[in-house]
Amino acid sequence: MSWLSKPARPLNEDARHAAAKRQAGLTKPPGSLGRLEEVAIALAAMQGEVCPTVDPVRILVFAGDHGVTDAGVSAYPQSVTAQMVTNMATGGAAISVLAEALATDLELIVLGTVGEIACDPVPPSVRLVGVAPSTRDFSREPAMSGTELEVCLAAGRAAVERTVDDRGCRLVIGGEMGIGNSTSATALACALLGRPAPELSGPGTGLDATGITRKATLIERALYLHRAALDTPLEALRRMGGFEIAALTGAYLRAAQLGIPVLVDGFIATSAALTATRILPGAQDWMLFGHRSHEPGHAILLAALDAEPLLELGLRLGEGSGAASALPLLRLACTLHRRMASFAEAGVDGALP
Amino acid sequence: MSWLSKPARPLNEDARHAAAKRQAGLTKPPGSLGRLEEVAIALAAMQGEVCPTVDPVRILVFAGDHGVTDAGVSAYPQSVTAQMVTNMATGGAAISVLAEALATDLELIVLGTVGEIACDPVPPSVRLVGVAPSTRDFSREPAMSGTELEVCLAAGRAAVERTVDDRGCRLVIGGEMGIGNSTSATALACALLGRPAPELSGPGTGLDATGITRKATLIERALYLHRAALDTPLEALRRMGGFEIAALTGAYLRAAQLGIPVLVDGFIATSAALTATRILPGAQDWMLFGHRSHEPGHAILLAALDAEPLLELGLRLGEGSGAASALPLLRLACTLHRRMASFAEAGVDGALP
Repeated sequence: MSWLSKPARPLNEDARHAAAKRQAGLTKPPGSLGRLEEVAIALAAMQGEVCPTVDPVRILVFAGDHGVTDAGVSAYPQSVTAQMVTNMATGGAAISVLAEALATDLELIVLGTVGEIACDPVPPSVRLVGVAPSTRDFSREPAMSGTELEVCLAAGRAAVERTVDDRGCRLVIGGEMGIGNSTSATALACALLGRPAPELSGPGTGLDATGITRKATLIERALYLHRAALDTPLEALRRMGGFEIAALTGAYLRAAQLGIPVLVDGFIATSAALTATRILPGAQDWMLFGHRSHEPGHAILLAALDAEPLLELGLRLGEGSGAASALPLLRLACTLHRRMASFAEAGVDGALP
Repeated sequence: MSWLSKPARPLNEDARHAAAKRQAGLTKPPGSLGRLEEVAIALAAMQGEVCPTVDPVRILVFAGDHGVTDAGVSAYPQSVTAQMVTNMATGGAAISVLAEALATDLELIVLGTVGEIACDPVPPSVRLVGVAPSTRDFSREPAMSGTELEVCLAAGRAAVERTVDDRGCRLVIGGEMGIGNSTSATALACALLGRPAPELSGPGTGLDATGITRKATLIERALYLHRAALDTPLEALRRMGGFEIAALTGAYLRAAQLGIPVLVDGFIATSAALTATRILPGAQDWMLFGHRSHEPGHAILLAALDAEPLLELGLRLGEGSGAASALPLLRLACTLHRRMASFAEAGVDGALP
């Protein structure tokens, strides 16, 4: 796992300054495009271009099942993970509809599911990694072996490398599918942030108050069980995480090393993003955040990262859907930055004194 | 002005219920697409279609100059209104870039500007109404005559009618350009809501604290001057409004009468939207809100309308730019609603109990 310690690519401060200067001359009151200006300038610093672009974009959805689901922490059975991957591959899921509408690539990386992926033949957009049918129940034992963790991190790494090698992608969106994964993400976040489980535990896909209490109690028990071994982010990820969360973590790390901006999705994805920044602090330079979820733990994770997502629309679906919904804003930000006239070009009376 | 009293078209409640039922069966936890679900259902009720669509879209930008600008309430000179219309017509302004990037129509309706529109020839997307070079200074006398008000309302009405007749538009975005118009919009909002000027007065395109105090004092004086005559929304609009604000009001009224959804922009546009709902309460049924501006009065106007915009990105530019930035969300909401698979179609284990 020596690749994990490679540094993140540094940002290009010259491009940042040039982009900020360009924005200041465009025909609008200074700062009046708000976050659309900030995003264009941030992307300029990442891409080393005064006028950045986010296309081509690829959405990577990582899927895996969770042993902890047996404890009744999800509103849906484990069989749904594989069924939803099939639905994504055949165009019926939210993320597949979004990917088509947004004209982005969509790749599904199946780390391991209890059910079968029922596509025959399996389309090339689906990659079957086959780590194991599911993680183990982290309230009783570590979720993954060291080897399983390594394979998942490497799967995320390889997926990001393909976005460059296949298509020269300029932006990557990571999504996830895994029944039970809000429990795993909550436990991981509690371990990394040292916060009590009830503070971060929420309904996930639809638990009621009793279910949320059961989930928080289980996470508290697991945090106690693993308490002596949570001293590194990788070990917290191995013990409490999921296959797809580990793969997302690997993807964010590799994107930062290669210098590819990522648009982070909701609660689960942000737990992986936090893990990545704890492994490699410079990774955060390459992250933009798409959507603030209603899942209560998300606000705490975002605050820990000092991150402000572009959207807040009450989404709580995962799959990468919140980040995908924010993609048009990144595109508009880049287009405004590139195409608007300056005061001088347009003959409009001066910028502000 | 008898057309103003025609009723708004009623919403289609059958289509609303059918759309809500469709949403509940799609392959996602119920409600997990948040406001994207709500928007699709609201549009279904407006359009009387289970699966609504917002295209074709036309952006109407109304422009006019303000006599009150002489009192030093804006960071820019009046000449900029016509210069910015020229910039919009030739593709260099934010709204022109957005319209092209979003593949929408853009029509510019110039009610009256002090400067000349310097396009030769004037392109067909620019309509010169020629009410007067500017309104009169409302801190000294009514901004408009009754005839001027009538012409502006009718210009908004005609612009909306053209969206149907020319192109069968399914959504209209209204924008505005007019140096000094945040002063006019603030005064109008204070008159309609009975609020003191300092509460709603903000920087507009870039006033400093001293400028904001000057603006608020001027508005207080105007509210006092006109106090005996602010008893109807039309009279408040005539005395305190601007040509472009009156035309926007006419546009929102006609859209509601014809049953065309409108996506309302920021502070200035919302002052016109509030005026329209005070003239015709049913008009609000046809309004969606794009962006919450940083202009402090906007929050108060939105609260009065019980409206929650889709975006909050710190924009404070006007031109329709906030609403245009939210358009991709409406399109994605409609596409998700139309194209996602149901649990039954996808063979995914059941909806929640």
